[in-house]
Amino acid sequence: MKVQRVDMFVCASATPSDVSGLQKLADEGKIKPETLVALVGKTEGTGAHDDWGRIWADAALREWTARFLGVPKDEVAKHVIFVLSGGCPGVITPHIAAVTRELVDVPDGGDREKRLVVGRAGSEAISPEEVGRMGMIRKVAAATHEAMKDAGLTDPKDVHLVMVKVPGLTVASIRDAESRGETVVSHDLTFGPEGAGVYANDAAALGVAMALGEVPESKLSDEVVRRDWDLFSEVAMTSSGGEKHHGEVVVFGNSTASASTLRIGHSVTNDFIDAEGVRAALRNAGLQFDSDGLPDEEDLKRLVHVFAKSVIPGNDHVRGNRITLLDDVHAYEIGKALGGMLVASVTGRTTNYVSGGERNSHQGPPDGNIVAAVVRAD
Amino acid sequence: MKVQRVDMFVCASATPSDVSGLQKLADEGKIKPETLVALVGKTEGTGAHDDWGRIWADAALREWTARFLGVPKDEVAKHVIFVLSGGCPGVITPHIAAVTRELVDVPDGGDREKRLVVGRAGSEAISPEEVGRMGMIRKVAAATHEAMKDAGLTDPKDVHLVMVKVPGLTVASIRDAESRGETVVSHDLTFGPEGAGVYANDAAALGVAMALGEVPESKLSDEVVRRDWDLFSEVAMTSSGGEKHHGEVVVFGNSTASASTLRIGHSVTNDFIDAEGVRAALRNAGLQFDSDGLPDEEDLKRLVHVFAKSVIPGNDHVRGNRITLLDDVHAYEIGKALGGMLVASVTGRTTNYVSGGERNSHQGPPDGNIVAAVVRAD
Amino acid sequence: MKVQRVDMFVCASATPSDVSGLQKLADEGKIKPETLVALVGKTEGTGAHDDWGRIWADAALREWTARFLGVPKDEVAKHVIFVLSGGCPGVITPHIAAVTRELVDVPDGGDREKRLVVGRAGSEAISPEEVGRMGMIRKVAAATHEAMKDAGLTDPKDVHLVMVKVPGLTVASIRDAESRGETVVSHDLTFGPEGAGVYANDAAALGVAMALGEVPESKLSDEVVRRDWDLFSEVAMTSSGGEKHHGEVVVFGNSTASASTLRIGHSVTNDFIDAEGVRAALRNAGLQFDSDGLPDEEDLKRLVHVFAKSVIPGNDHVRGNRITLLDDVHAYEIGKALGGMLVASVTGRTTNYVSGGERNSHQGPPDGNIVAAVVRAD
Amino acid sequence: MKVQRVDMFVCASATPSDVSGLQKLADEGKIKPETLVALVGKTEGTGAHDDWGRIWADAALREWTARFLGVPKDEVAKHVIFVLSGGCPGVITPHIAAVTRELVDVPDGGDREKRLVVGRAGSEAISPEEVGRMGMIRKVAAATHEAMKDAGLTDPKDVHLVMVKVPGLTVASIRDAESRGETVVSHDLTFGPEGAGVYANDAAALGVAMALGEVPESKLSDEVVRRDWDLFSEVAMTSSGGEKHHGEVVVFGNSTASASTLRIGHSVTNDFIDAEGVRAALRNAGLQFDSDGLPDEEDLKRLVHVFAKSVIPGNDHVRGNRITLLDDVHAYEIGKALGGMLVASVTGRTTNYVSGGERNSHQGPPDGNIVAAVVRAD
Repeated sequence: MKVQRVDMFVCASATPSDVSGLQKLADEGKIKPETLVALVGKTEGTGAHDDWGRIWADAALREWTARFLGVPKDEVAKHVIFVLSGGCPGVITPHIAAVTRELVDVPDGGDREKRLVVGRAGSEAISPEEVGRMGMIRKVAAATHEAMKDAGLTDPKDVHLVMVKVPGLTVASIRDAESRGETVVSHDLTFGPEGAGVYANDAAALGVAMALGEVPESKLSDEVVRRDWDLFSEVAMTSSGGEKHHGEVVVFGNSTASASTLRIGHSVTNDFIDAEGVRAALRNAGLQFDSDGLPDEEDLKRLVHVFAKSVIPGNDHVRGNRITLLDDVHAYEIGKALGGMLVASVTGRTTNYVSGGERNSHQGPPDGNIVAAVVRAD
Repeated sequence: MKVQRVDMFVCASATPSDVSGLQKLADEGKIKPETLVALVGKTEGTGAHDDWGRIWADAALREWTARFLGVPKDEVAKHVIFVLSGGCPGVITPHIAAVTRELVDVPDGGDREKRLVVGRAGSEAISPEEVGRMGMIRKVAAATHEAMKDAGLTDPKDVHLVMVKVPGLTVASIRDAESRGETVVSHDLTFGPEGAGVYANDAAALGVAMALGEVPESKLSDEVVRRDWDLFSEVAMTSSGGEKHHGEVVVFGNSTASASTLRIGHSVTNDFIDAEGVRAALRNAGLQFDSDGLPDEEDLKRLVHVFAKSVIPGNDHVRGNRITLLDDVHAYEIGKALGGMLVASVTGRTTNYVSGGERNSHQGPPDGNIVAAVVRAD
Repeated sequence: MKVQRVDMFVCASATPSDVSGLQKLADEGKIKPETLVALVGKTEGTGAHDDWGRIWADAALREWTARFLGVPKDEVAKHVIFVLSGGCPGVITPHIAAVTRELVDVPDGGDREKRLVVGRAGSEAISPEEVGRMGMIRKVAAATHEAMKDAGLTDPKDVHLVMVKVPGLTVASIRDAESRGETVVSHDLTFGPEGAGVYANDAAALGVAMALGEVPESKLSDEVVRRDWDLFSEVAMTSSGGEKHHGEVVVFGNSTASASTLRIGHSVTNDFIDAEGVRAALRNAGLQFDSDGLPDEEDLKRLVHVFAKSVIPGNDHVRGNRITLLDDVHAYEIGKALGGMLVASVTGRTTNYVSGGERNSHQGPPDGNIVAAVVRAD
Repeated sequence: MKVQRVDMFVCASATPSDVSGLQKLADEGKIKPETLVALVGKTEGTGAHDDWGRIWADAALREWTARFLGVPKDEVAKHVIFVLSGGCPGVITPHIAAVTRELVDVPDGGDREKRLVVGRAGSEAISPEEVGRMGMIRKVAAATHEAMKDAGLTDPKDVHLVMVKVPGLTVASIRDAESRGETVVSHDLTFGPEGAGVYANDAAALGVAMALGEVPESKLSDEVVRRDWDLFSEVAMTSSGGEKHHGEVVVFGNSTASASTLRIGHSVTNDFIDAEGVRAALRNAGLQFDSDGLPDEEDLKRLVHVFAKSVIPGNDHVRGNRITLLDDVHAYEIGKALGGMLVASVTGRTTNYVSGGERNSHQGPPDGNIVAAVVRAD
C-alpha cells in the first residue's frame, strides 16, 4: 500500500536571497528534486506592496529551485508552490520552510496513527469581476476539494491548514473587467479595509470554509464578504497577488494513510492577547502539556513549525479596554509584530511563520486568529 | 505606631486630556488632596520627542490636580509626582495609575507581613556636564537613599521599583556647559544609541544600582555608561527631560511598617520573548501559581498593576536566531509594542504600564527587561 | 454705502496650544470680538486621524476664542469658523491665519477696484446616507450659493477660494443609516482611496463645482464621485469630520463692494512639480512679475498668504517618468510635505497653508492642485 | 594630442533589478566594455540601512556589468565605480546614469572650450580608528588629488563634483579597533546625528575640501568634524558603507583637454527652500537664462543630469520661521523627498540624482546643499 511520507525543514535566512539553507538540505539529501512540493517562508523587508525584500527572495528562490529541479525558471511553479509572506517585524526570524512529499510502501492493514499529508490543486481561472465575490469563493472551494483528494483526505476534520493564493485586482484587470461592462469589488488596490487585496483574501477564506463545511453555501453571497464576520474558516491562510490568474491551494492534514513522522494540529485565538489559543494549537498537534500548564523543553523540541495569522481585530477594545492600534499609522506592521510575539512567547523561538496586519478577516473568528502547529510525533 | 497605607488605582483614559477617571476616584473619596502622591501613566500619541498626546495629557492632568489640591499649577510638582510615558502602540491601553499614601495608626509589635510603602525624594541640582556621567549617578544614588528613608526602607532587598526622572540635555544647556569650558556626554539630542536621552536614563539607572548595592561604586565611572552592560539595576525605571534641573525619585517597596493591602514584587526577563520573566514578577509579588503553570482567573483578579520596561536588545539574535528589529526604522514603536504584548499575554489585560523602545540599557540585564507587579495581598 | 472690509493676519504657532499670536493681534486691536470671522491654520502633529496636536490646538483655540468673544465655548462655532488642517511635514510652519470682516461706509458710486470679501453659510443637515453622494453635493451647492450671497458675490468668476467642512462617516453614523435600511458610500473610515473621508471631501468639492457652474448638474451623480476625474472645482478646499452634522462653507472672492486692502486670486498646478502653477496664482492675485520670470522681493512682501492643496496624483508618472510615491507607506505625509516645498520654493517663506496627502481628488484637475493667494493690493 | 571624451546617459529603472536601459545603451553602442567607468543611480526602496531595493539593484547591476565586461563579478569594481543611493521618496524617479570615458585624438593647439572630464582613484586602506577623523580626511584628500590627476585637472576651480565612498564602522571593525587599544569615533552605527555613518561621510567631505583648498589643513582636526559647520566643501558628495576598506573617489570637472560635448557646473543652495541655488547650478553649467528668470524649454533640453544633496538643516528655522522637520520621525525620508521636489520644480523632470536626509553635513554650507549640473554644450 502506497502512502505519503511528508517532511518539513525550517531554514533561517541570512538575507532575502540566501539559499544556503536549502542547498544544505539538498546536499544532505533531505530535499530532492522529486520530493520538494512547497517552499513557505517569511521574508524580511517592508511587508508592504512593493516589498523588494520579498520580491528579491522570490526571484532568488525561483532561480535556485529551477537549477535544483533542472527545469526552466518559468516552469518551477508547476512543481513547487511558493508562499512567501513579506515582513518580519519584531521577533519573526526570516526563514524558509521546505515541504517534501514522497510515496512509500507500507504494509496493508494494521492500526496506523494519523500523520501529516499534503495535497495541492490549482483552481479554474478567476476573472477580475469574480475577485472578492462568489465566483472566487466557489472556485476556491472546488480547488480545496481537489487538494483534499490529492492529500487523500475526505473528512474536513482532518484538515488543519489550507494555504491559498488567489488573483487580486490591478489597474489593468479592473480596466479589462469594466471594458467588458463588468464591475469590480473595489477600486482600492491597497490592503486597507475596503481594499481589493483583503476582499480577495477573504473570499478565498470563505471558499475554504465552504469546502470544509465551516460555513454552509446557503449563507454565502457577495454581500457577506467583509460584512458578516461570524462566517469564517479556522484553517484558511490566504494571500492574493495581481499577477496571478488562477488560485493555488495547499492542504495540510492528518491521515492514517501516511508514513510521516509529523502530525499537524490547529486552534484559534479568541482575541489579540490570547496566548492560550497558541498553546491550544500546540496541544492539538500533539504536545503533551495540560491545559493549566506550559509546554516543557522536551515538548518544545518536538515542535517543528507554527503557522499563524495576526489579523488586527475589527474593534478597538480588548477584554473591555480600549487600544489605539486601529488608528495607528503603522498598524499593519505592528499588528504583524504582535502576532509574532504572541507565538514566540509560547514556542520559545522566533522562526515562526506569522503573517497578517490587515484589519479583520474571515480567516479565523472575529477578533481572533488561526494558529496551526506541526509536531514530530515521537 | 504610625505606618504608611498605600493604595493604587488604575483608570483607563479615553483621550489624552481625559480626567474623568481621576474625578470619579476623587468623588468616591478614594484619592484625597492630602493622600495623592503620584500619577503614573501611559499616554497615547507618537511616543516620540514632540508627542502632543503626552504633552497635552501632562497639561490637562496638572490643571486638574491643581484644582483638586487647591494650589497654583506650578506648585503641583511639589505635592504630586508625574510620570507620564508617551506611546501606547499595540495592546497598551492609555491609562493613569493614581498612588495614594497616608499615615495610619496600627498597634505596636505583633508579626506584620511586609506590605507596600512608597518614598519620594528630589536630588541636588544636576548640571549639564553631569548628565549621563558620574555626577548624575552619584546624585541619583543619594536621592534614592533619601527616598528609601522616606519610605521607611533600609534593606535594598525590600525595594522592588524605583522610578526616576532626571534632566536631559538641550541645545541651551549644552551651550551653557560649553561656554563654561565643560564638555557634555553627547551632542545627539535623540534617544538613539548615542543620544543624550539614553545616557541620562542609563546614568540614572546606575545611580539606583549604586544606591541599592546592585553595582559597587568601585566599578562605576563615566566610561562604563552605555558600554559595560553587565552593570545594571533590576528595579530602576528611568526617564529624562530637558526641562528639568533636579532628579526626582520614587521608591516602591515592601515593609512591615505598612498597613497597605498591597504588596509589590519584581523580576526580570532574560530575553525579549521571555514570558516566564513576567510570570516570575507576578509570583514574586504574591500570586500563587507554580513555576510550571499559569496564574488562574482568581489570581489575576488580585493583580493591581504591572510596570515593565521594553528596551530593545543590543544584539540581533534571540535564542540563536536573527531578528531584524534593530534595523527597523520603526524599532522604537515596535519594541515598545512587543513588550506590551508580552505582558498582556500573561496578565490577560491591556492596562499595563510598559515603556521602552530604546536600544539597550542599564535598566535590566543585557537583552532582558524589568517587570514589577503590585498585587492585592488578600 | 456699506461694504465689507476684510483683513487677514498670519501668526506662527510655537506649539499646538500657542495663542500668543492671536492675543497680540487682540491687544493691538487688529482683531476684535465683533470682527473675527474665521481662524484657518496648520497645526503640527501626525496629520493622521487621531492627531493630538490638531485636537489640542482646536481645544486651546476654542477656549481662547470663547474668552475673547465672551461667549460659552460651545457657542464659539456660531461666531467664528475654525479650519484647522493637521500635519506640518517638511517646510510648513505651524500657523494660524485670523480673518476679520467689518462693514464700513464708503461713498456711493465711483470706480472701485475689486477687493477681498468673505461670506459664510451653514448647510442643511446632511445624513450619513448622503455623505459622499448627490445629497451632500446638492446641500453644499446650496450653502455655497448662500455664502456667496453673504459675501455679496454674484459672478462665480469672482470666487477664488471656497473652504468647506462637511460631516464624514463614523461607526455610529453608519450603524444609524443601516438601521434605517439605508446604505453608505463606504465602510472604510480612513482617508484611503475608497475611504469615507475622501468621498465626503470630494462630494463637497463637486458641490462647490456645481454651485459655481464649473460642472453642470447634469453631469453629476453618485457614480461620478471619485470616478470621473474630469469633473472638478478649481477653488474648493474641503475637509470632513465625523463629529459634524452640517456643512460649513466660507467663500473668499473679490468685489467692488469692498474697502479691503487685500485681493485674492487663484490658479492650479498641472502636475505635482508645476511651480509655474503656484506663480500663476500669485500673478492672478496681483503680483506683478511676468510669465518668464520670478516675483521679486518687493512683490513678495505684498503677499499675505497662500492656500494650497497637495493631493497626490492618481497615476504614478510625472511628465513621462515613473515615481514611487503611490506605493510609499508614508505617501500621505510625504505628499503633503512636497506641496509645502513647491509653494515655499516660490513664496520664499514657510508659513503657507498647504493641506493634502490623499490620493486623487475633485479638488483641482487630475494630477494637479489648487493654489489661492491673498495679496495686499498696494 | 590625446584627450578625454566623456559622456553620460540617464536610464529610468522600472524595478531595482531592471538593466534593460543599460542593455539598450550597450546594444546601441553608446556604452562599451572599455568605455564604461561609472554607474551612478538612485534606487527605489526604504533608503534605510537594510534597503533591499538598493542591495538587489547592486547585485543585479554587478551581474549585468560582469557579463558586459566579460570579467568575474568580483572584479567589476576594478573597472566600473558604482554609486547607488537608496530611496526615491516623492518625485525622484529611480534611474541609473552611465558614465563613459574614452581617449580620442584631437589636433594640438587651438582654443578649446573647457568640457567634461572624469578621474578616478582609490585611497590607501582606512582603519576603523581613522573613520570620521583626520586619518580619513588625509587619505581622502590624497585620493582626491590622484583622481584630479587622472582627470587631467590641476586647478581646483575646474572641479565641480567629487563623489566619494569610504568605509564606515561595523560591529566587527569596532571590535577590531578596540582589541588593538584604539578608540572609534562613535558606537552609534546609524545615520543619526552622532552616528558613525555621518562622521565617515563628513570626514570624507572635509578630505575633499582639504584637497581643493576649500578648507586649509591648519583648520582641520578630529574635533572639528560635525562641530564646526563653517568648514565645508561645495562639491563633495560622500557616502560610506561598512563593507569597504578603501575610499573611492570620482572627480568630475571641466578641462580644455577634453573632446566631450558635455560641461559640468555647480552651485549651492543657501537654505532648504532655495530654488535659486538650483537655478544657479544650471546657469553655472551653461544654461542661458538670466538671474531674474527661468530656464526655457530649449535650455532644459540641453540639461543632461543634476546631482544634488538634500541634507536636513541643523536648525529648525527657515528664513525666520520654525519648521518641525528636525523632530519628525520620518525626517530622513521627507528630507530627501523635499530635495527631490526642489530640484524637479526647477528642472521640470523627476530623473534627478538627489541623495540626503541626514541632519547637517560638511557637504555644502550650513543649512544649504550642493547642486551640480551636467549640460550638453551645444
